[in-house]
Amino acid sequence: MIISTKKGTPAAELDRIIHEFEAKGLEVTLIRGTDYNVFGLVGDTTVLDEKQIRANPYVDNVQRVSEPYKKANRLFHEADSVISVAGVKVGGREKIAVIAGPCSVEGEQETIDIARQVKAAGACMLRGGAYKPRTSPYSFQGLGTEGVLDLVKARKATGLPIVSELMSEDRIDEFEEYVDLVQIGARNMQNFQLLKAVGKMTKPVLLKRGLANTIEEWIMSAEYIMAYGNENVILCERGIRTFEKYTRNTLDLSVVPIIKEKTHLPIVIDPSHATGNWRYVESMSLAAVAAGADGLIIEVHPCPERAWSDGAQSLKPDRFQHLVEKARQVARVIGRDL
Amino acid sequence: MIISTKKGTPAAELDRIIHEFEAKGLEVTLIRGTDYNVFGLVGDTTVLDEKQIRANPYVDNVQRVSEPYKKANRLFHEADSVISVAGVKVGGREKIAVIAGPCSVEGEQETIDIARQVKAAGACMLRGGAYKPRTSPYSFQGLGTEGVLDLVKARKATGLPIVSELMSEDRIDEFEEYVDLVQIGARNMQNFQLLKAVGKMTKPVLLKRGLANTIEEWIMSAEYIMAYGNENVILCERGIRTFEKYTRNTLDLSVVPIIKEKTHLPIVIDPSHATGNWRYVESMSLAAVAAGADGLIIEVHPCPERAWSDGAQSLKPDRFQHLVEKARQVARVIGRDL
Amino acid sequence: MIISTKKGTPAAELDRIIHEFEAKGLEVTLIRGTDYNVFGLVGDTTVLDEKQIRANPYVDNVQRVSEPYKKANRLFHEADSVISVAGVKVGGREKIAVIAGPCSVEGEQETIDIARQVKAAGACMLRGGAYKPRTSPYSFQGLGTEGVLDLVKARKATGLPIVSELMSEDRIDEFEEYVDLVQIGARNMQNFQLLKAVGKMTKPVLLKRGLANTIEEWIMSAEYIMAYGNENVILCERGIRTFEKYTRNTLDLSVVPIIKEKTHLPIVIDPSHATGNWRYVESMSLAAVAAGADGLIIEVHPCPERAWSDGAQSLKPDRFQHLVEKARQVARVIGRDL
Amino acid sequence: MIISTKKGTPAAELDRIIHEFEAKGLEVTLIRGTDYNVFGLVGDTTVLDEKQIRANPYVDNVQRVSEPYKKANRLFHEADSVISVAGVKVGGREKIAVIAGPCSVEGEQETIDIARQVKAAGACMLRGGAYKPRTSPYSFQGLGTEGVLDLVKARKATGLPIVSELMSEDRIDEFEEYVDLVQIGARNMQNFQLLKAVGKMTKPVLLKRGLANTIEEWIMSAEYIMAYGNENVILCERGIRTFEKYTRNTLDLSVVPIIKEKTHLPIVIDPSHATGNWRYVESMSLAAVAAGADGLIIEVHPCPERAWSDGAQSLKPDRFQHLVEKARQVARVIGRDL
Repeated sequence: MIISTKKGTPAAELDRIIHEFEAKGLEVTLIRGTDYNVFGLVGDTTVLDEKQIRANPYVDNVQRVSEPYKKANRLFHEADSVISVAGVKVGGREKIAVIAGPCSVEGEQETIDIARQVKAAGACMLRGGAYKPRTSPYSFQGLGTEGVLDLVKARKATGLPIVSELMSEDRIDEFEEYVDLVQIGARNMQNFQLLKAVGKMTKPVLLKRGLANTIEEWIMSAEYIMAYGNENVILCERGIRTFEKYTRNTLDLSVVPIIKEKTHLPIVIDPSHATGNWRYVESMSLAAVAAGADGLIIEVHPCPERAWSDGAQSLKPDRFQHLVEKARQVARVIGRDL
Repeated sequence: MIISTKKGTPAAELDRIIHEFEAKGLEVTLIRGTDYNVFGLVGDTTVLDEKQIRANPYVDNVQRVSEPYKKANRLFHEADSVISVAGVKVGGREKIAVIAGPCSVEGEQETIDIARQVKAAGACMLRGGAYKPRTSPYSFQGLGTEGVLDLVKARKATGLPIVSELMSEDRIDEFEEYVDLVQIGARNMQNFQLLKAVGKMTKPVLLKRGLANTIEEWIMSAEYIMAYGNENVILCERGIRTFEKYTRNTLDLSVVPIIKEKTHLPIVIDPSHATGNWRYVESMSLAAVAAGADGLIIEVHPCPERAWSDGAQSLKPDRFQHLVEKARQVARVIGRDL
Repeated sequence: MIISTKKGTPAAELDRIIHEFEAKGLEVTLIRGTDYNVFGLVGDTTVLDEKQIRANPYVDNVQRVSEPYKKANRLFHEADSVISVAGVKVGGREKIAVIAGPCSVEGEQETIDIARQVKAAGACMLRGGAYKPRTSPYSFQGLGTEGVLDLVKARKATGLPIVSELMSEDRIDEFEEYVDLVQIGARNMQNFQLLKAVGKMTKPVLLKRGLANTIEEWIMSAEYIMAYGNENVILCERGIRTFEKYTRNTLDLSVVPIIKEKTHLPIVIDPSHATGNWRYVESMSLAAVAAGADGLIIEVHPCPERAWSDGAQSLKPDRFQHLVEKARQVARVIGRDL
Repeated sequence: MIISTKKGTPAAELDRIIHEFEAKGLEVTLIRGTDYNVFGLVGDTTVLDEKQIRANPYVDNVQRVSEPYKKANRLFHEADSVISVAGVKVGGREKIAVIAGPCSVEGEQETIDIARQVKAAGACMLRGGAYKPRTSPYSFQGLGTEGVLDLVKARKATGLPIVSELMSEDRIDEFEEYVDLVQIGARNMQNFQLLKAVGKMTKPVLLKRGLANTIEEWIMSAEYIMAYGNENVILCERGIRTFEKYTRNTLDLSVVPIIKEKTHLPIVIDPSHATGNWRYVESMSLAAVAAGADGLIIEVHPCPERAWSDGAQSLKPDRFQHLVEKARQVARVIGRDL
C-alpha cells in the first residue's frame, strides 16, 4: 500500500504515522519528494482500511498495490478451480457448461417439457426462477416453494442438475435440500448478510455481478462467501448498467480474461439478461465462448410471447439448439468442448 | 401505454393483440403508419409487464405513458406527506431535518458524547450504524445489538430520535422495538424481501437510492414498502456511481425537484457518503438546502482519523456547527426553517 | 412519433397542437385517456425536434417510434453495404478485414518494418497515427505530415492500404491525397464540423464510437457524413466509458448484432483501445469475430515497452500472428473467412 | 509517481528500470515487498506517460501522486484567478456572474429584446448560439455569421458582453473580432486542435465539461489552452451522462468545491443543459450559488414553445427574474453578491 501526504506535513506527524503502521507489523519506507512525501507499506495490508487512513487530514491519497482478496486470488492458488454441480464439472479444461431454461418456473408439466427440450439441444443444467426479483410490487413474484418442487420433478425426469435464485436467508434450508447450484442475483451481490449465509451452505454458488459493480467488488463478494466457508463459487456476468438504450444492459465480455487472470474461479456468461433481446443472444453466446468463458446461462421458452416474465429475451428451443451447435464448433477452435 | 409493431405485421396478428388487451379491460386505439403500426392503451396499465409484451416478435417497442407507481404518485395524492419520526416531523413546510452522528457506533460513552455534541450544534436526530455493509469480509462489521443499545442510551441522554441501518429480516423485531427511523441502505434498495418486510413495520423508513438506480426504480422500491402497508417512507439520495474519480460518488441534487414533482414523499440528502470527503460536505449541504431538500444526514465524529469506518467523510463537531448555522440562513431564503 | 399531454390540458390547446402538426403534413390521431391524452403522428417525423415539442408546458413526454436516421437505416437499404478501401472490401460476406500497426508512426524504417510484419501475419491494412489526440499538452502529439508520408512509404513497400486519424479540417487535402481510410476518432465523433467536411471527401471513413455515446448518436454521426455526400462509412467500436477500473474502457460487443439490424454499414472492433491491455486483446478479438464483426483493428509494435504511445495495449508481431490464425478458424465456424 | 512490478521480476530488469528513470533526471527509491516491488519516483513526472510505462510486461501498475497539470494547479498559483470579460469580472470574491439568453440566436430584433429583458432581470452577460452542435444533420444548425452580428447589435443596445460557442478553427477570426467570451462546447472539450487554436486567442474562454469526462481530463483541457498561451479560462459544468432517464444529464455540483481546491480558475454552472427541463432550473441555480459557484449560465426565451432549439429547458423572463432575486439572497448568505 502506498500513502502520499500533503506538502507541509510536520515531521512529527510523519513519525507518528510511521510508528502507527509499524505497530501493526508492517514495514514502512518513506520517500521524500518536493511537493509530497510517500510511504510504502510492505506486509499483510488486507487488514487496513483505506478510507480510515484517508481520514487523516495530512493524507492526500492511498493506493493499494496488492489486491484486497486472498482466497479468490490466483496469486495464492495457481490452478483453476473446477466446481462440481451434482457431478457436472465447471471450470478448468472441462466442457463448457450450458445452463438453460425459463426465466420463471410456470408449472410442473411446462418445466419438465422445457427441461427435456434443453437437454435434447445440449444443455447440461436446468435453470428456472421460483423466487423472482421484480422492480414492481405489482408484477408476478414467482411460484415460491411450488416452483422449486417443479424443478425437482424436472430434474428427476431428465437428470439435469437445477439452478435457481435464492433471495432471502429464510429459504436457505429449502435450497440446501433441493437446489444443486444456488444463484445469488445481481441485486443481491452486495447483500452481505445473504453472502455470509450462503458461505455456510454446502451447495455451490453462482454469483452474478451487480448492475454497477466493479470486477474488484464482485471478487470481494466471492471472497465473502469463501471466507465464510464455501469455496465453490462460480462467477456470472450478466451485463452492467450504462447510458446505452438499445440494450437492457451492456455485456462486459472483458471480464472473461480478467477473472481468469486475477482469480482461479470459473466464469459463466448470461447473454439473455445482458442484452434483454433474444435477437442478440446467439452472437453474444458465440462471443463468450470464443473469449474463453467456462459456461453460458441462457433463457429458453417454447412460447416466449406467453412467458410469465422476460419473454423478450428468451429463445425458442430450435434456435437454442442451433446456438449450441455453433457454440460447440467455436469451443473446439479454442481447444475446449461443450 | 404505447406499443409499436414492425412493418409487415399480419392483420390477423394485429387483431389478436387488440383482443388480448381488450380482454384485460383496456381500451385500444390502433394508429396505422407507413412503416409501423402503433397501439395506444388506455386504462390501468400498471398490471402490464413491458418485457412480456416485447416478447412478441412483431412488437418493436413499448413505452409507458403513465408512471408505474400509484401510492407514491403525486398525481393521486396532491399534498406533501409529512412523516413523524418519534415526534420530529419531516417534509412539507416543516423544519429541515438535520440528522447527524458517526458512521459506526463505537461504544456507549462515545455515542452519548457525539449525540450531545450534534444536538448542541442543531441536529434533530442521531444516526449511527450498528450493522455495517462492508465491501470486504475482513473489515469491521459493526457492533450489532450492542451498538443499537448504545444508540438507545444516547437517545435517553439527549432525547434525539435514532436512525440506524437494517440489513436483514432477522433483526426486524430489534429495530421495531428500539429504532425510530429504519434505514434501508443503497446496496439493499432492491432487496425486495427486505422491502416487503419493512412494509409490515410500524416504524418509518429512510430509503436510500441504490448506487446505480434510476429515480423511477427508487420510487418503485418506495412503492413496495407502501404497497405492503407502511406509507411512512422518506427518500434519501447518497450519490450515484459514475466514471468520475475525484469523488466517491456523484451527488445528484436534481432528485430534489424531481421527487417533489413526481411523488408526495420527503427527500433527504446525504452529502457525506455522496462525496466521500469532508472537505466537500458543507458546500453540498448548503446546495441541498437551497435546492429544497427536506433534510440532511451528515457524518460527524470528534476525531475522524480514529473513526472505525469512513473517517475521511466525517466532519468534526465544530465544522458541523458552522455548517448548520449557514444552512439555517440558506433555508430562510427559500422560506423554510432548520 | 408519440406525444403525451398532461392531465387537464384545455381542449383548445389540444386542437391547436393537432393543427400545428397537420400543417407540417403529418397525420395526427388523438387517443383520450383518463389521466393523459396521447397523439400519434404518422409521416416523415425526422424533421421534428423532440426538445422543441417538449417545450410546450402541456406536453408531458415525446417518444420516437421510427428511427431518426434515413441513409444509414437498414429499413430503406436492405442489402449490406460493402465498402472498398483501395480495393480491399469490407462488409457483407467479404473476408473479415484485419487492420494492424503501431499506435503512433515513429519513423520511416520502423513503419515499413511493422507493415511487413503485420502483412506477413495476415493483416490487410496498415494503421498508424500521425496526428495524435492526447489528454496532456505535454505528451507526444504525433509526427504530423512526416508520419503520413512514412505510412505512404510503407504502403509502397507492402501494398497495404493505410488508415490514419484526421483531427482537423485543415489536413483534409493531405488525407484526401495520401490516406486510404480516414479515421474519425472517438473524441471527434460529435465534432460536427469535421463530420460535414469528411462528408465531402471521396475517401471512405472509419467512424469510431464516442466514449459515452449511444449507438443511436453514433449512427446519427454516420448519417451526417452520408447526408453530406460520402456514403462509404465503416463504424468502429472501441469501448465505452463506465465505472469499471480494471479496463481502460468497456468493450460493447453487442453493437455487432445491433449495427447489423439497424443499419447496412460494416462494423469493425478495436480491442486494443477498448481494453487498454495487450493481455486481453486476443480473447476480445476472437469474441468480436464470433459475434459477427466485419473487421478488427489491432495495435502491433515490435517492442511495446519502447513505443511512443499506448505500448501497454500493443501486441508483439508473433502474438498478433497467433491471434490471426485463431481468428481465421473462428471466422470459418460462422461462415466467413479472414 | 509510484510503479509496482510483478512478483518474480528479475533483478537485472529492476536495475534497468531504475537506470532508465534516473537518466530522465528523476530520483528513484525501490521498496522490496514479498509479492511485489514498488518504485517511488521523485521529480518532474509530468513528462512521463503512464501508458508507456505500463507497456513493460514486468510492470503491474502505475499511479500518479502529483497531478498531471501545472498552469491550472492551485499548488503553484495560490490566489484565485479573476477573469475579465470585456470588463465584467468573474471569479475570486467578485459578484457571481449571471449569463443569460436564448439557446439559438433567432434574429436581430428577437436578440435585442431578450438582451434587454435579461439585463433588466439582472444578467451581466448575454449568451446565444450562432453555430449549433446538433445530433441530427436535419436539425437547425444555427444562423452562423448573421447570428454573431445579431449578438453584436444586442451588445450595442444593452452594453452586455456576449458569449457564443465556437465550433471550428475557421471561425476564429470572427470570434476574435466580435465575441467577448468564447465558449468551447461539451462535445469539443477534447477537440485538441481547437483547444490549441483558442490557446492563441486574446479573448477569454468558457470551457464546458465533456459529457463523460472526468474532472481531471477537464482540467487537462484547460491546461491545453493555458499551455498555448491563453490563461483566461473559465470552467463550466453542464451535467454529465449517467444511466438516469428523468433528466437530460446529471448535474455534478461537487465540481464546485473540487475545482476550487485543485485549481485557481473560476467555475460557472449551466443548470439548463444539465437538467434539460425548465422546471428544475431554479432549484439547481440556487444550489449552485449555495455551493459557491462563480457564475450561472441560463437559457431564457420569451416564448419557449416557439424557440428554434432547446425550448424545453428555457425559462420565461419573469421566472428568470424571480430566480435572480432568490439567487442574490442565497449569495449573500455565503458572503458573495450577484
